[in-house]
Amino acid sequence: MNKVFVIGLGAGDSGLITLKAYEILKGCDVVITPKSKLSPRSVALEIVKDIVEKDRIEFFNFPTTNDEGDLKEAYDREANRIKQLISQGKRVAYTTIGDVSIYSTFNYLSERLTHLGVDFEIVEGVPSFISLANRVKKPLVLKGESFAVVELKEGVDKIVRLFELVDTVVVMKIGGRIRQLFELIRSVKLEYAYLGSRLYLEGERIIDLMDAKQDEISDAYLSVAILKRLK
Amino acid sequence: MNKVFVIGLGAGDSGLITLKAYEILKGCDVVITPKSKLSPRSVALEIVKDIVEKDRIEFFNFPTTNDEGDLKEAYDREANRIKQLISQGKRVAYTTIGDVSIYSTFNYLSERLTHLGVDFEIVEGVPSFISLANRVKKPLVLKGESFAVVELKEGVDKIVRLFELVDTVVVMKIGGRIRQLFELIRSVKLEYAYLGSRLYLEGERIIDLMDAKQDEISDAYLSVAILKRLK
Repeated sequence: MNKVFVIGLGAGDSGLITLKAYEILKGCDVVITPKSKLSPRSVALEIVKDIVEKDRIEFFNFPTTNDEGDLKEAYDREANRIKQLISQGKRVAYTTIGDVSIYSTFNYLSERLTHLGVDFEIVEGVPSFISLANRVKKPLVLKGESFAVVELKEGVDKIVRLFELVDTVVVMKIGGRIRQLFELIRSVKLEYAYLGSRLYLEGERIIDLMDAKQDEISDAYLSVAILKRLK
Repeated sequence: MNKVFVIGLGAGDSGLITLKAYEILKGCDVVITPKSKLSPRSVALEIVKDIVEKDRIEFFNFPTTNDEGDLKEAYDREANRIKQLISQGKRVAYTTIGDVSIYSTFNYLSERLTHLGVDFEIVEGVPSFISLANRVKKPLVLKGESFAVVELKEGVDKIVRLFELVDTVVVMKIGGRIRQLFELIRSVKLEYAYLGSRLYLEGERIIDLMDAKQDEISDAYLSVAILKRLK
């Protein structure tokens, strides 16, 4: 089988892996979990560690840099490693948090895998914004409504303009941009706004942004926010 | 336990139910699956039938109408039925296709349940647009991009304007509006466009809309489309 399975793991609870993903993870010889070189922890590992034994897990240590050369080198190396494992007859799964269609770095790998003649099959995962919406029991969209998913670094002005066309905006890649997030909240008349950090993981926080103060939130790594405008 | 579990079932493959949802469905006394009065088939039933035995399934027959009175009566009746089952000590799950935060009619029920003092816990499901993106191996958003989810009945003009602010638009509730869908495709310069109908179910179709002709698609019930504009 000249194919690697690409598994969306969801936000952080191993119970939110799909049955299909579970079966594949159980049956693979090697489960690759991405891990930043800078961080001692891997969220993907936190999710799969109760399902996959340690000796079947292999880390993909990727650099947290925007240096094109470093990134190219890391992804080239990893694509070749996957091809090697598959050539050895190994069944291989590559895991990502959330779902692979939403801001996943797997895209860098998929191009290289295709180039190397390695096929891949993706198994859906639940994106973090779906988890946050359900945790706070606020639908993203009711009949007649629409929503958008954006990165905060796109800029507050653009997101404010987006609110003229959609009812709800999901903000991702917040990171250290807490000031901008609060600027956005002040710029639009909102019905509600929630921030979810490290959903289902140790240190989880779900914050009502309409009540929160900017300095209560130092940073928002691994976070997502849902903002609904007032009608 | 004064609580009903609300389970997102995903697009149509029972393998895409989460482990958590699976455990709850296995452990509940009554699993409610919504069924339109007009249709002999229930998509929710098609997904759960291999997991839940027939004698634990109860149908919620809702009217496919916009008549406020009929809808009110059906949802009032169903909320009271759930309260009754829970009062009898039954463990109850209510199922929806996709995820409950995206255009789900559960919102009509949730208000009534809250009014009746019945709590609910939602278990995430994979929305159909995530399934379609992964099936066609096209990410919804890469780094620096954004996407929106809209109902086609919002109108083609509004969606065209939305393309000025986002890279990808997911179109839901297409139904019989094939003419409008093709009008939209002609109105924006697109990199790709796909339609997925009855994903993972009998009669599934995945259509490349850039190649397809309008009259090849008679209707698009239970469909979702992903349109990405050219950069």
